[in-house]
Order: sequence, then C-alpha cells, then structure tokens
Amino acid sequence: MSRPLHAIVDALGGRLLGDVCLEIERLAPLTTANPSELSFVAQARYASQVLTTRAGALIVPPGLEEAAVGRGACIITDDPYLYFARLTQWWRAQHRLPVPPFVDPTASIHPTASVAEDATIEAFAVISARARIGPRAHIGAHSVLGADSFVGASTQLYPRVTVGEACVIGDRCILHSGVVIGADGFGFAPHQGAWVKIAQLGAVRIGDDVEIGANTCIDRGALDDTVIGNGVKLDNLIQIGHNVQVGAHTAMAGCVGVAGTAIIGAHCTIGGGAIVLGHLTLADRVNISAATVVTRSIAQPGHYTGMFPIDDNASWEKNAASLKQLNRLRERLRSIEQRLDSFLKNN
Amino acid sequence: MSRPLHAIVDALGGRLLGDVCLEIERLAPLTTANPSELSFVAQARYASQVLTTRAGALIVPPGLEEAAVGRGACIITDDPYLYFARLTQWWRAQHRLPVPPFVDPTASIHPTASVAEDATIEAFAVISARARIGPRAHIGAHSVLGADSFVGASTQLYPRVTVGEACVIGDRCILHSGVVIGADGFGFAPHQGAWVKIAQLGAVRIGDDVEIGANTCIDRGALDDTVIGNGVKLDNLIQIGHNVQVGAHTAMAGCVGVAGTAIIGAHCTIGGGAIVLGHLTLADRVNISAATVVTRSIAQPGHYTGMFPIDDNASWEKNAASLKQLNRLRERLRSIEQRLDSFLKNN
Amino acid sequence: MSRPLHAIVDALGGRLLGDVCLEIERLAPLTTANPSELSFVAQARYASQVLTTRAGALIVPPGLEEAAVGRGACIITDDPYLYFARLTQWWRAQHRLPVPPFVDPTASIHPTASVAEDATIEAFAVISARARIGPRAHIGAHSVLGADSFVGASTQLYPRVTVGEACVIGDRCILHSGVVIGADGFGFAPHQGAWVKIAQLGAVRIGDDVEIGANTCIDRGALDDTVIGNGVKLDNLIQIGHNVQVGAHTAMAGCVGVAGTAIIGAHCTIGGGAIVLGHLTLADRVNISAATVVTRSIAQPGHYTGMFPIDDNASWEKNAASLKQLNRLRERLRSIEQRLDSFLKNN
Repeated sequence: MSRPLHAIVDALGGRLLGDVCLEIERLAPLTTANPSELSFVAQARYASQVLTTRAGALIVPPGLEEAAVGRGACIITDDPYLYFARLTQWWRAQHRLPVPPFVDPTASIHPTASVAEDATIEAFAVISARARIGPRAHIGAHSVLGADSFVGASTQLYPRVTVGEACVIGDRCILHSGVVIGADGFGFAPHQGAWVKIAQLGAVRIGDDVEIGANTCIDRGALDDTVIGNGVKLDNLIQIGHNVQVGAHTAMAGCVGVAGTAIIGAHCTIGGGAIVLGHLTLADRVNISAATVVTRSIAQPGHYTGMFPIDDNASWEKNAASLKQLNRLRERLRSIEQRLDSFLKNN
Repeated sequence: MSRPLHAIVDALGGRLLGDVCLEIERLAPLTTANPSELSFVAQARYASQVLTTRAGALIVPPGLEEAAVGRGACIITDDPYLYFARLTQWWRAQHRLPVPPFVDPTASIHPTASVAEDATIEAFAVISARARIGPRAHIGAHSVLGADSFVGASTQLYPRVTVGEACVIGDRCILHSGVVIGADGFGFAPHQGAWVKIAQLGAVRIGDDVEIGANTCIDRGALDDTVIGNGVKLDNLIQIGHNVQVGAHTAMAGCVGVAGTAIIGAHCTIGGGAIVLGHLTLADRVNISAATVVTRSIAQPGHYTGMFPIDDNASWEKNAASLKQLNRLRERLRSIEQRLDSFLKNN
Repeated sequence: MSRPLHAIVDALGGRLLGDVCLEIERLAPLTTANPSELSFVAQARYASQVLTTRAGALIVPPGLEEAAVGRGACIITDDPYLYFARLTQWWRAQHRLPVPPFVDPTASIHPTASVAEDATIEAFAVISARARIGPRAHIGAHSVLGADSFVGASTQLYPRVTVGEACVIGDRCILHSGVVIGADGFGFAPHQGAWVKIAQLGAVRIGDDVEIGANTCIDRGALDDTVIGNGVKLDNLIQIGHNVQVGAHTAMAGCVGVAGTAIIGAHCTIGGGAIVLGHLTLADRVNISAATVVTRSIAQPGHYTGMFPIDDNASWEKNAASLKQLNRLRERLRSIEQRLDSFLKNN
C-alpha cells in the first residue's frame, strides 16, 4: 500500500525535489527510517540528522534544502512538523477503506433519541431518551449516552465511552475508550461526622475539536456546567473536577488532576501528573511543568514549576532530612550573620 | 419547572421570611444568581455577599437574618451549607420523574442470580452466577457483577461498573461509571529475575453509604478482604491497593493512590493526588494535603503536608539545584558556626 | 473445601513435618491465622513470628525448622514466599470448578475473526474483523477487540477491556477490567494557536506473561509501536505514552505515568505515583521510589528518589517558604564564609 511521493505533494502541497515517483511504503522516525520510508527534520538546526538518516525521502525546512537535495528526494515546506501532522492524517485516510455509516442491530436506541442518518452506532451502544447524535458522528461499541445528551457532527466516541445525562459534546471531537463525561462532582456537606451529598445539578459542555484521552473523567457541575473550550486536548487518565472551566486550545498531559471550580485559561499547557487545586484561576498562556502542584492563582503567562529533583536515594535521604530543618537552618544563618556583623562593627 | 419557596420550606424546614410564593426556577451560585434563583450564604462572616448578590432568595444563618431580610426573601437555618445539600437532593427529586423498576430484556442474568423484585437492571448488564441484588438497587447499563457478588439495597451502579467475584457492596452506595471493584491486588514473588503471581484470594467489602467516583479501582485482598467503611467518599481515578482498610466517613479527593495493606482511620481526609505508601497506619482524623506522599504511619490527628512549592521556573531551577546541595550547606553552616564560636571564645 | 497438608506438598514439594493429615481450611496472614489455617514466614530473621502466630501450620525456611517443628506442623522450603505464591495459585485452582470453554451467544464476532476452538468469549464481547484469539484465551464480558488485533494463547481479558486495532497481546497475559490498549498517543503539531492532530499510525505490542492492572492505559505509537516486554507487571491506573518501550520483567506500581518515547530497561521497579518524563532512557535494574519524577536519563542501576518529605503542616509551611529562598540562603552562606575567611586571614 505504498504511495508515490508526488501523490503526497499533490494532496498536501510543498515543493518536491528529486525522484517524484519514489514509492513510500511507510512514514518513519528519522533514526530508523529506511530507503523506502519518508521522514522529516523539524528545524534547520537539526541539519546533522539530514546526513545520518537512511530515509528514502525527507520533509525539511527551506534552510535544509541544499543538504537534503544532496542526499535524495525531499519535500520543502516552512513547517515540516505541521506538514508531517497533516501527512499522518492523509496517510491514515489512504490506508483505511471508508466504511459506510451503519447502526448495529444490537445497539439499544431509545425511540425518543434522534440519530442523524449518516451517523454510525456500533454494537451494544446505548442511546438514552432524547439523546441527539449529529451527522457523521461515530458512537463506539458499548458506549452509553445518557438522557438528553448531545454528540455533535463528525465526533467520534471510541468503544466504552460514557456521556452522562444532559451533557453536550461539540463537533469533530474524539473521545477515547473509558472516558467518563458527567459523573457527579465530589461535593458533600459535613454533618455530625458524616457527609451529606450535594446533588450535582449541572452538566458538562465540551466545545468543538476537543480530544479526550482514555479513561479521563470530566465531572458535571454542582449548579452551573463544567466547561471545556474549543480545541482543548486532554491526554489519558486526567481528572477534571466539577465547575472547572478550561480555556480554548489548552493541552494537558496524562495523569493531571484539576480540582473543582478551577478556572484555567486558554493556550495553557499542563505537564503530566500535575495537580491544580480548586477555586483558583490560571491566566492564558500559563505553562505548568510535569508533577507540579498549583496551589494559587497565576495571573501572568509564563512557565511555572515545583517538583523535588530526583537524586540517588542516599543523597536524597540526606537532603530530605535537612529540608525538614530548613527553616531552622535559615534562622541559624541569620544568627551567625548578626553575630559576625556585630563583631566586625565593634572591632 | 419552578417551585415556590414555601414548598422548599415545607419539605426541608427552616424559617421562611419574605415572599413565600416566590417561584424559584433554579439553584445558583451567589455570584451568578438572578432574581428567579435561590442561593445560600454559608457563614455569617460572608455578610458582604448578602448585599451584592442578585439572587431572588437566600438561605442564610441566623446571624445574617437582618441583612438578608432587608433585601428580599430568605430562609433562616443554622447550617445553610447542609440545608443547601439537602435542597439539591430535593430539587433533583422534584425534576426527575420516578421510573418504575425494570429489567431490560437485553441484560444477561444467570439463572442462579437473585434479583430483588424492585431492582432495576439496565441494558446489557451481566449478572453472574449466584450474584445477589438487593431491593431498589439500580444496575447501570454494561455493568458486570461477578459470581457470588452482592449489591445492597438502594445502591446505584452507573453504567460500566465492574464488581468482581465475591465482592460485597453495602446499602445506599453510589458507584460511578468505570469503577472496578475487585481486580487482583498487585502481588508477586520474585524468582530468578521474573515475577510469580500471588493469586489474590480475598475479596472487597464495601460498607453502606459509600460513594465511589468514576474509574476508581479497589483491589481485592491477597488473603483477607480489602475493606471500605461506612460513609466513605472516594472521588475519581483513585487506586486502593489490596488489603487496605479505610475507616468510616473518610473522604479522598481525585487521583489518590493508596498502596497495599495501608490502614487508614475514620474521619480522615486525603487531598487530590496524594500517595499513601503501604503497610502503614493513619490514625482517625488525619488530614493529608493534596499531592503529599505519606511515607510513615501517623499516630496523631492533625494536618500533614509535603509538596514542593510552585515557583516561576527560573527560580525553581536555582532552588532545586541548591536543594541537591542542602545537606552540604548544612555542614558548611555548622562549620562556620564552629569557627566563629571558636574565634570568639579565644578573643 | 479444606485440603490436607500432604496434598499441598504432593503438589508443590517441600519437606513436610508434623501432622501430614492436618486439614487446612484457608491460607491466612501470620497475625490473624488460626489453628485450621496455613501461613508462612518468609525469612529466618522473622523467627519471633514463629512463636506468636496461632496458625495451624507454617511454611518456613530451613533456618526456622527447629522453631517451627517445636510448635506444630510445618513445610520446610528454601524460599517460603515463592512457595506461598505457588500455593495461592494451586489453592485457587482447587476451589474453582473448571468451566469448559464457551462462546456466549450474545457476543458479536465478525465473520472474518479467528477464534481458537477452546477459547472462551463472554457476553457482549465484540470481536472485530480479522481479530485473532489464541487457544484457551478468555475474553471477558463487554471486552472489545479491534480490527486486526491479536490475543495470545491462555491470555485472560477480564470484563471491559479494550484492545485497539492491530494491537498484539502475547501468551499467558492477564488484563484487568477497564484496561485500554491502543488509544491514540498524545501528539499534536502547534499551528496558529491551535493543535493539529498527528494520526497515530503505530500499534501496541505486548509480550508474554504480562499483567496489566485495572483502568491502565497503553497508547499506540505514533509511527513505530509501543512495546511492553515479556513478564512486565503493571498495576492499576498507569499511563504509558506512545512509543514507550518497557523492558522485560519491569514492574510498576499504581498511578505511574510514563510519557511518550521513554525507554525503560529490564528488571526495573517504579514506585506508585512516579512520573517518568518522555524521550529519556532508564538502564536495566533501575529502582525509582514512589512519587518520584524522573526528569533525566539514568545510566546506572540503583535506587533513585525525589519527593518532598511529609511533615506536620505548620512545619511544612515554614520549610517550604524557606525553600523558595534556598538559592539566596546559599549565596548568603557563601558570603559569610568569605567574610569570615577574609577576616581571619587578616587578623
């Protein structure tokens, strides 16, 4: 199922130099690519990679044209990484036969649900009362759409996704297996040593072009809705608490936890395993490093970090023990500064 | 679907002042509530909020009666947050038509299973041999109950919950989508560089009034059972290892991990993303901050924390580098203290 | 369903002393075992436990033979923990009636799928086009096997496992409920403030004898495959990013996150809640403590740690505040060292 280089450029643009009929069998990483494979060099500063790769053809920026042409076929484009992203999508489309829309006969669809004619519903999906499914949407096997939920046009739910009652998913979204949209937020009033449940009356509203990774959870709001903006990308195993707002085009890596009522700006990035506490606000364009705990609002764009540096265990043990004395050390330092100051002044 | 204020007080008590017929259309947060909405002020020290909200009616403590009456209808009650919690439950009940119990014909129910007459079994649920389901229990679509498992009265399983073989869930519990009760604990004996599985022969026993969040996992015990006490509240994406015991009314926020054989007391709270190591004991009424790692037993009630403070990345880099020298810094400080002491003594 | 001691030794070996006909009703932990139960003491240095347990019989190492014989029946074996692991497996097999292989009539099996004659397919499982299922494999209820996927001989999928398109699971693996194999890796090219998806063209390849805990996710590779070696053991709620390679017999505890393109050696252990950043390499036999963030490659075997030590909250607050001044403290210390040096030199 190879494709000639010229077919790629016909579809995606770019300037093609060298053997336009070279048959590409696979897209491959630079380091392992072989002469029938196509790879890319993202930036001119990686020029040395052009010389060492065995790839049959390369996607390179203009600054590497000379080097790339010297070794074989290449596609010149201003942003090779972007080109490569589009190429992966095109490549996949070339290699997957289009499947006509279908509704599996085992799916359980409530008579009051509304399913677009060209939507696909796989085996054992459950579509509850008054749920609405938009054109070209694809509902994976075993997915469950609650009453009054909505799935937008061209949105894909992989197998085993839950969309709770009254929750709304926009257009062109991708929800991976195990995603749970609209479980109850975690809200309880303490009473005589026990917890009284606060019924969660809000829902979840997810914008367009959102991707949500496997087993990620987004809870419904307590009163208002939890809101995920357009173009947000969430990796796997992320927890988004109730009432959270995530601004457009923000991306979070795996295992992030965002506590209730946090407001996260647009164009933020949050590294894997970070924890964002509740009832705080992050401005637009805030970048949080992996495993960092956000304990306060951040008003300025920028890069923020807080994590204990890894070390060999023996060194860590010593430093961690000293850390528990750190404030005392600081006081001892101040004391000795004062003693020395005082002595030097008097002598 | 509005409700008059007096209907709320008829149902939940409290002292109603002002327009008893005011129609409430929605419960809303103070900051966004409008004149047809009802909100609450939890404590007298938030008196200023009474003056700025546009809510049509307010639930307030006695200390705010005068201020609240001055602006419109209000309900006076000793604990507005608790009142509000009960109100959300009542509100939801008012707005959901009761559905008579049913067993979906697509559910797969083993002939030896025992299902109470007024239990509900949704589509594609699997009820294995000898499983027992109590009165008014609700088993969500695609949930799977293992052989010899038990689900108590009025317990609700949302869609896609797994309850493993021989595991027991008490009365009035709520298990959200994706919960896995009774997967094998993580136990292996090392042997010649490989791992030999320790079959996990215990089960999981969950008390009454327990709520378990989406995609949370509670492993079965190795020999004895893993035990979750009455009234425990677990948020989403929590991991509870084998043989763990969690005392009554303890609450854990999202993304917590509790390693095997930890014993956690009653009335504890554990913040989001915290990790509790195995084979240790926490007393009753221990509060662990978010993202804290509990590496030792804690015998005294209290509030415990350990997390690296967030900072701008450049400052963090400098401090983290110094942290790896901290024990050396401590030694240098001691040395200079000794030198100064010695000098001052001799002069 | 008790078993006489001699039946255990007949099956598993070891030297049996004392009442060979003693009926064992249960395997139990040392501290709670009663006279009809069997327990083990792992090492000779736990000799005191031999004297205090009420267990009816004990598995002990040769060094404890004398002490154990003095109190009752015992099995002598070089590695009691390994013996115990095998005993748990044998015990379970004794207490579970073998179920002949079956294919539940509700399962949805594509006509082009290939299912071994003695494989078991439970209710509502979905087996897609060209999927292949090996001999004695067991596919749990509601599990979904994507097109062209492969499940090896004697592998068990618990209910609600997803194996994505073209992913491969080896022989004798165990995948617990909620596992998602082969969701898309998290890859996007930034473009004008939005994210352009990089289609994930690789798959996941899992070796033999791998165990994967509940709700754990392993993403498919971007171009090449994500690869999990033979004998790897992953606990619950773990995230493995795209292109990751995990070496044979490595074990990870719950809630670990491994970012994309990390290469982890063989025989490593990674503690619960640890985060491994992407594009780095860990050598064989690296042990990472719980909750540690691996931010760089590690070339040497050994034990590595980085976590903030837990403290009472008031102490933590003081030390954390000082930590944000640590580099400044270091400079102050250097300054006072220089001043004292200079003074002492000149006097």
